[in-house]
Amino acid sequence: MSEKAATAAALVIGNELLSGRTQDTNLAYLGQRLAARGIRLAEARFVSDEEEEIVGAVRALSERYTYVFTTGGIGPTHDDITAAAIARAFGRRLVIDPVAEEKLKKYYGVETLSAPRLKMATVPEGSALIDNRISSAPGFRLGNVFVLAGVPVIMQAMFESLQDQLQECEPIRSRTLTAPLGESRLAEGLAEIQRRYPDVGIGSYPFARESRVAVSIVLRGTEESRLEEAAGEVADLMRTLGVAEGDIERH
Amino acid sequence: MSEKAATAAALVIGNELLSGRTQDTNLAYLGQRLAARGIRLAEARFVSDEEEEIVGAVRALSERYTYVFTTGGIGPTHDDITAAAIARAFGRRLVIDPVAEEKLKKYYGVETLSAPRLKMATVPEGSALIDNRISSAPGFRLGNVFVLAGVPVIMQAMFESLQDQLQECEPIRSRTLTAPLGESRLAEGLAEIQRRYPDVGIGSYPFARESRVAVSIVLRGTEESRLEEAAGEVADLMRTLGVAEGDIERH
Repeated sequence: MSEKAATAAALVIGNELLSGRTQDTNLAYLGQRLAARGIRLAEARFVSDEEEEIVGAVRALSERYTYVFTTGGIGPTHDDITAAAIARAFGRRLVIDPVAEEKLKKYYGVETLSAPRLKMATVPEGSALIDNRISSAPGFRLGNVFVLAGVPVIMQAMFESLQDQLQECEPIRSRTLTAPLGESRLAEGLAEIQRRYPDVGIGSYPFARESRVAVSIVLRGTEESRLEEAAGEVADLMRTLGVAEGDIERH
Repeated sequence: MSEKAATAAALVIGNELLSGRTQDTNLAYLGQRLAARGIRLAEARFVSDEEEEIVGAVRALSERYTYVFTTGGIGPTHDDITAAAIARAFGRRLVIDPVAEEKLKKYYGVETLSAPRLKMATVPEGSALIDNRISSAPGFRLGNVFVLAGVPVIMQAMFESLQDQLQECEPIRSRTLTAPLGESRLAEGLAEIQRRYPDVGIGSYPFARESRVAVSIVLRGTEESRLEEAAGEVADLMRTLGVAEGDIERH
């Protein structure tokens, strides 16, 4: 039996994402993987490497959603300030975690850590570590906030390691129907279907293919049978508008 | 002479981005193009296709930044609710814009528009249209909020069309130095350089290349000479740490 549907927010931290130097891919990853567990990613915020910004955003998101996932800012350099910001947001002291310290010593093969490396073992008091099997410097969890790395391969490994800490809800499933049709022609019929299936989220996404308009209709929901039914109605609507059955792609 | 530095926020609207179905690229585009005009993209929010969410976010961002750019939700279907949300956020009525209506009639080659197509000519009262040379349905500007399409090619065309409406500030320039070095070794020297160049933003971005650690140091600022100087110091630091001059990539 599944628990009450959970929600999540992403807090993506880093100047490089807002300046356009780096194309973020963490958001889409989190959205997909959370949906597979039935957790809806309801909001995301991108903020710069400024403590005040991180503090404000993480407090607001933590109050509002079941889970918050932050990415970025947990390295050894001066611009990595996520741990300090999370500590301040929740009124915790920063402490050196002895387990993290040992892991980092082993990874770097040294007796004592330099100050920048020791910083990567420094977390808000009361945090639980999140394992980093790629490069050793851990993430951490404080309350409903999960603090992950920014480098995608490390972020993904961290996220996968904490699956048993997340609620298991009904997975959010989807059906997509694509047809060579302008979306304005579908609009009225589609709104009618949406009214009759309030438990199914229906989105319409136009695009161009070989210079001709096309549209993908995406249906999302937790109940397989309702999705099937609603998708059947969308296909009927497409055929009514003159699309041949063979021209409707389903996935 | 340049005016006072302007800031901007992006409000990216659409369930498909939070579910991970679609990889957003509009944020990075806006960040880059704004930086070229000296406008710092300071924050971004991603919200779902829910009026309440859009209203809350656009109000908060509009108060705080010089400009807000929204993307998505201006099509003809039931899930396109951006115009209605912006109208509500700023207490305006929705009106049919006669110029937009004429453009759409011409584009679709019809005498009268269907209700869904007419919706694309419907904007908050007092808005100025933003031209769409790709598919005719316009964006609009209300106060400091610019409402753009979600489809990247259309969003980009709209953004480029409104350049004369944006402040021209000193462009934000950047220098990048990449070296085969773990970032923790650079951290202390880099923090020292950052302290002496408070007008230059210095970011450290580690990555792996052929299974070996490497780091890109990105310096950003408006003054060419200060950037050059700070970049010179970063290169010195890298050489001090044993990197050969030929192994430092600059761009």
